[in-house]
Amino acid sequence: MAAHDAVEVILAKRDKQELTDSQIDWVIDAYTRGEVADEQMSSLAMAILLNGMNRTEIARWTAAMIASGERMDFSSLSRPTADKHSTGGVGDKITLPLAPLVAACGVAVPQLSGRGLGHTGGTLDKLESIPGWRAALSNQEMFAILEDVGAVICAAGDGLAPADKKLYALRDVTGTVEAIPLIASSIMSKKIAEGTGALVLDVKVGSGAFMKELGSARELAETMVALGTDAGVHTVALLTDMATPLGNTAGNAVEVAESVEVLAGGGPADVVELTLALAREMLAGAGRSDVDPADRLADGSAMDAWKKMIRAQGGDPDAPLPQARETHVVHAPASGTLTRLDAMAVGLAAWRLGAGRARKEDPVQAGAGVVWHARPGDRVTQGDALFTLHTDEPDRFGRALASLEGGYDIEDGADLTPGPIVLDRIG
Amino acid sequence: MAAHDAVEVILAKRDKQELTDSQIDWVIDAYTRGEVADEQMSSLAMAILLNGMNRTEIARWTAAMIASGERMDFSSLSRPTADKHSTGGVGDKITLPLAPLVAACGVAVPQLSGRGLGHTGGTLDKLESIPGWRAALSNQEMFAILEDVGAVICAAGDGLAPADKKLYALRDVTGTVEAIPLIASSIMSKKIAEGTGALVLDVKVGSGAFMKELGSARELAETMVALGTDAGVHTVALLTDMATPLGNTAGNAVEVAESVEVLAGGGPADVVELTLALAREMLAGAGRSDVDPADRLADGSAMDAWKKMIRAQGGDPDAPLPQARETHVVHAPASGTLTRLDAMAVGLAAWRLGAGRARKEDPVQAGAGVVWHARPGDRVTQGDALFTLHTDEPDRFGRALASLEGGYDIEDGADLTPGPIVLDRIG
Repeated sequence: MAAHDAVEVILAKRDKQELTDSQIDWVIDAYTRGEVADEQMSSLAMAILLNGMNRTEIARWTAAMIASGERMDFSSLSRPTADKHSTGGVGDKITLPLAPLVAACGVAVPQLSGRGLGHTGGTLDKLESIPGWRAALSNQEMFAILEDVGAVICAAGDGLAPADKKLYALRDVTGTVEAIPLIASSIMSKKIAEGTGALVLDVKVGSGAFMKELGSARELAETMVALGTDAGVHTVALLTDMATPLGNTAGNAVEVAESVEVLAGGGPADVVELTLALAREMLAGAGRSDVDPADRLADGSAMDAWKKMIRAQGGDPDAPLPQARETHVVHAPASGTLTRLDAMAVGLAAWRLGAGRARKEDPVQAGAGVVWHARPGDRVTQGDALFTLHTDEPDRFGRALASLEGGYDIEDGADLTPGPIVLDRIG
Repeated sequence: MAAHDAVEVILAKRDKQELTDSQIDWVIDAYTRGEVADEQMSSLAMAILLNGMNRTEIARWTAAMIASGERMDFSSLSRPTADKHSTGGVGDKITLPLAPLVAACGVAVPQLSGRGLGHTGGTLDKLESIPGWRAALSNQEMFAILEDVGAVICAAGDGLAPADKKLYALRDVTGTVEAIPLIASSIMSKKIAEGTGALVLDVKVGSGAFMKELGSARELAETMVALGTDAGVHTVALLTDMATPLGNTAGNAVEVAESVEVLAGGGPADVVELTLALAREMLAGAGRSDVDPADRLADGSAMDAWKKMIRAQGGDPDAPLPQARETHVVHAPASGTLTRLDAMAVGLAAWRLGAGRARKEDPVQAGAGVVWHARPGDRVTQGDALFTLHTDEPDRFGRALASLEGGYDIEDGADLTPGPIVLDRIG
């Protein structure tokens, strides 16, 4: 590998030059090895955030992060593979019903997930509220569950894209998270290294998402779809609404319960709609458009796959879920139509109740979270229960209530038909 | 002091907001104490470099850096004080004749200097080539020499603007040196904390300088003059040419020898001209415009002050200066007029010969450097000695010669009158 110098690479990007393949390969490798210091990488990350990278640079950056670790290979499985990645939203429990549903349709789902940081929850945090369930699996266990059950949701091992792991932790403390080239390469390096055959990206747009505007969400989606396609992964992206939180719950155990409702054939309409839309894309990417996932929800086979999947990782799918020690109900201050429910307000409230963490070493509360009893378009009567807040620590209610304030509108005589969840499709 | 958060401050500047006084005070203090990490400050520095700071922010940033350490006070001296700061150039030995010259005119010069890094030399490195001379003085020693001799050139103590010391070292390795707000506040925090009554800034412009263009040099000069004036220091700036190196030498002992020639009433015309121009500004700032420094050069009193100043710091002004073990002569490849001599090419050659350092812990060679035997406008004959390269390590000649290649032009029949050294005056 050609030898470069950290300052040379920083100056090039600072001065709006295109980084060469050799510079990118070197800087990622040297950072992983500790030769490029954190303070140099953070300065480079800020220069990338402010001056950008073109598609060629992003592709090389992604390839260099993949090359920093191992790659998985599922080609020996008896079924095709498909995975889904969401850029993170409030109440986004979709992975929980989706993975067993797609498995029930004959496509294997190797879902390597993360924990939550900030106002959006983490899939592993949610599943860990199920008694006995564990996120850490060896590669052998993962393969065995995937062959047997067809779906596995577990923690990504340290071997996949270690450069990304190190860089992500750095970006989090240096104000350099919100750079499309870095977000795209971070997500796609892990997903490509994971070895899935098909990938569906759920790119969230709105107040509760990283991307507040449709334009930047589309740019991120297009960048990721191009990266996946160029790497031989059948990749599509759905741009989906995250102005309003998904379903009726945001937290950990409360979201598991809602997911189980969906698998039982019920659940909130928006969660069902998005789960089916993503399942259809995953099946199409894996060459199984012939199967209708709605049938597998209706016939109980998705629920069977869920229970097998939870048991395979030590969990008891029939055990009662943890409940928070304290609840607080917010009543509707007026009668009328709920015309707005802000995803960020709800996400912050759930986070402040203890469902999420401020630092990655913090614990989360299994029972904490927010349940809302009306969705935009619903009519409410003054005094009705509007939100139920759950936490083990009642001194958290104050700040949670403050974040809900101004987070919803009730308008008398107004009519509202909620917009579509899927805003656009890229790929 | 109000509590802030590093990421909050970084995001504000990243998103082009004006930093508040409270944010600036906090981030400088927290960085000095180690609460803000290097990787956070470097990310902020890159955001400042790319998004800028306005005059209000720069003034507060400078004040916060001054407040991070001690301030000196020379008001008890029997004479007024004046200091000079150069932004760094090739062959810039001006401090050496200037400080004793101004002292000989009745104004005290407390010159706190640094070591060189990169292609521009450091005043302390040059003086350390004088046998016995030492740069480190206690504050008491410094005051005593200043009262007795009237001029002292020594290392800045760790107590002045420690935030700047830490930040400067960080910027050097993170590609964030070339930011006008950070350059201006770095220089001015030290100079204001040093407590001089008058200050003359020699802002270099051209290939051998930080500022390659007159526009950016003027912006830097105006920023610094405003900072000094607002802090009660009588401050002016001269914009001076650094497309061509100063005098006929670049190195350490070779520049001391040239400075002594100037003090003896000789020396290269450009060095004499700039020394007198800066001396006149310093005298005017200190209220002593009545004295003509040219008289003090002519009557030998500047040389007397030099010898006293060197002796006061343990040096022997009459001892032979160190000489490099090896020399290499570059002969003129053609006859004609030397129409261009590039400061950066000469500076890099001197640096590569061992006169400067790549890292701050590296030693420098006292005898290393470049001597040029013609200046732009001079006629040369093919085969004449054009450069003499000095080093203790002959394997350095190759890279030094490479940096001189293309660094000068000889044109037959051309006529050239060198332009003025002082390009503009701000203040």
